[in-house]
Amino acid sequence: MKLSDRIIGMASSPIRKLTPLADAAKARGIKVYHLNIGQPDIPSPKKGLEALKNIDRTILEYSPSQGFLSLRRKISEYYARCGMDFGPEQITVTSGASEAVLFSFLSCMDPGDELITTEPTYANYLAFADAAGVRVRTLKTDICKGFALPPVEQIEELINERTKAVLICNPNNPSGTLYEKHEMEMLAEIVRKHDLYLFSDEVYREFVYDGKEYVSAGRFPEIADNVILIDSFSKRYSECGIRVGALITRNEAVTKGVLKLCQARLSPPLLGQIVAEASCDEEPSYLENVIAEYGQRRKVLLESLGKLPGVVTSVPHGAFYAMVALPVDDSERFCAWCLSDFEYEGETVMTAPATGFYITPGLGTNQVRMAYVLKSEDLERAVFILGKALEKYPGRK
Amino acid sequence: MKLSDRIIGMASSPIRKLTPLADAAKARGIKVYHLNIGQPDIPSPKKGLEALKNIDRTILEYSPSQGFLSLRRKISEYYARCGMDFGPEQITVTSGASEAVLFSFLSCMDPGDELITTEPTYANYLAFADAAGVRVRTLKTDICKGFALPPVEQIEELINERTKAVLICNPNNPSGTLYEKHEMEMLAEIVRKHDLYLFSDEVYREFVYDGKEYVSAGRFPEIADNVILIDSFSKRYSECGIRVGALITRNEAVTKGVLKLCQARLSPPLLGQIVAEASCDEEPSYLENVIAEYGQRRKVLLESLGKLPGVVTSVPHGAFYAMVALPVDDSERFCAWCLSDFEYEGETVMTAPATGFYITPGLGTNQVRMAYVLKSEDLERAVFILGKALEKYPGRK
Repeated sequence: MKLSDRIIGMASSPIRKLTPLADAAKARGIKVYHLNIGQPDIPSPKKGLEALKNIDRTILEYSPSQGFLSLRRKISEYYARCGMDFGPEQITVTSGASEAVLFSFLSCMDPGDELITTEPTYANYLAFADAAGVRVRTLKTDICKGFALPPVEQIEELINERTKAVLICNPNNPSGTLYEKHEMEMLAEIVRKHDLYLFSDEVYREFVYDGKEYVSAGRFPEIADNVILIDSFSKRYSECGIRVGALITRNEAVTKGVLKLCQARLSPPLLGQIVAEASCDEEPSYLENVIAEYGQRRKVLLESLGKLPGVVTSVPHGAFYAMVALPVDDSERFCAWCLSDFEYEGETVMTAPATGFYITPGLGTNQVRMAYVLKSEDLERAVFILGKALEKYPGRK
Repeated sequence: MKLSDRIIGMASSPIRKLTPLADAAKARGIKVYHLNIGQPDIPSPKKGLEALKNIDRTILEYSPSQGFLSLRRKISEYYARCGMDFGPEQITVTSGASEAVLFSFLSCMDPGDELITTEPTYANYLAFADAAGVRVRTLKTDICKGFALPPVEQIEELINERTKAVLICNPNNPSGTLYEKHEMEMLAEIVRKHDLYLFSDEVYREFVYDGKEYVSAGRFPEIADNVILIDSFSKRYSECGIRVGALITRNEAVTKGVLKLCQARLSPPLLGQIVAEASCDEEPSYLENVIAEYGQRRKVLLESLGKLPGVVTSVPHGAFYAMVALPVDDSERFCAWCLSDFEYEGETVMTAPATGFYITPGLGTNQVRMAYVLKSEDLERAVFILGKALEKYPGRK
């Protein structure tokens, strides 16, 4: 017996190799600042937590495969507030955005088909593409250009008869990039012209800074049938653990196709849906405060990084990540060294090597992704310690 | 844009077509007895419900991708009580058994590989096989022989160089069949000899009647590396909605391979895991009472069916399903007719046409699956009404 080729070929994120090193550092009594993970430290909405406390069921039974209608109505109302008209019948509740991504891939692409996405990219897309047997072609985006999309010609160069879809994450994980209106218009024109699906992962939709305009892929009527929005309660409401996401599309055939997979896995999480539905009723001030808090942390991160010589970052206009180029020989080696060979006053820092977000060998080898999910004072201290580490690191360049 | 071939080819269960008819019948004021679904009406364990009430977290955050260690320890202890030795590191927590099945398929088989399973079979296996690009070959089992496994020669006839795995559901959904020790020994010898995986879905493990011995695939040391057990809290603890299952194997490579998929989907449901863990501490009397209740219902079902002329059923020794052959031209047509054209004293009955569980065209067309998840008095009444329907049905044979 052997494993499937798709599993053998599936990359393990470099961050996985660091976890035992971080555990060992902690075991030596060292405090580790985690800039590596996207787990917000923001409390979940009170209304969601109250609903959880008030669950008064004696049988924790299946819910409908497409999710509770009452929850899909709340999501529909949320989209109306975002200026987008999606009925409950156009919304499928999934086990996190992850399942929405996997089911989109399985429903819209066959083995050997091609998917175009940006590089760097969210690593788990690659795993789901492997699972679906789909080949990923990448649009290289550059830290020095703020990870903006390349011009239309470069994108069209990648399109051939096997190309089925374009996938974006907007605002972007890992780069924090927010796609501008002209970039979204360009993508809309490309998917319309070439008859492609546009998967748009918008789980960080609210996390937008500097007064920038957010342009959802759901706002282009001329590609209504092309667009599949991926959404989640995880980041918006700091409810990563409830595993409630959604797949939203005006394309009826896709909704019906995805439903077959949803029926096969029976139902999305019952308890998470109850929490999610109640969270939709949280006061708007909840999210405003969350965004203000992240805005402040982002400011602290950028200012602190600005003090470190040789460090380059693109200003992230969305999400809560920044890609940072460090003056080191190899960021995987550096991240490991920070955990295994370095400490400053009993403290060190853990960041995510960017190689996990790149496919093309050799790209991003001096970059790391930082998630600014720590309190401002911790964030400032973490970057200060990073600076100390860079001073001492033997592989500094 | 078109859907993927795997989705286009994926069968829709015939039961889906009946749901609108059932809704319409209810709208006309008709009471519908549901023998079609596997949703138990048994209350979930008190300890699980209490744990749910006592969740006192302010952030509903990610859990580990392989599931909480504390839950995996409890599952390990449960297996020890079942006489099987599996450490927490051999246990992966999944979003229901469904995810364990899908991830097993994706991890162990490539597109074009072949999987052998029984026919009739649990319909959702077929959807997951389609998703994984795997071809399903079937062992035909016969209602008149109690859906027992065919002899070794017939099984080996299906094995070729693309065969990667055998999949059983034991006790069986949809047939209620329990595989005898000699059948399990035969399977063990086959997978050993031909170096195949043996996926054994044992979610109904406790639901065994008539003092029969349960023989788990996990009890054959000579095929320790071949066996992947699929498990779930859904049926054992009437917690279908929490979406907590498990994949259990002594094969380290499979555990590591599956972990890649688990990491891609980030984590299993947090809240469900808390409920599941507490449920493991429920008194043994809980499950004893549940099994006794199902045993009673099974008795009522079989006795009631025995009164109907022309109706054939195999005695189900496990799970809570029975496959029943009816004296009708076509069970899909009959099931629809019961909902759209029939009522007896304002009541009717809904059963699942067996064609959804067969792959070979023409097989099982006069059979239905009945889930005995109703209270005994309702069950008796439902079968009585079924008898009345059979008397009046114009397509009676």
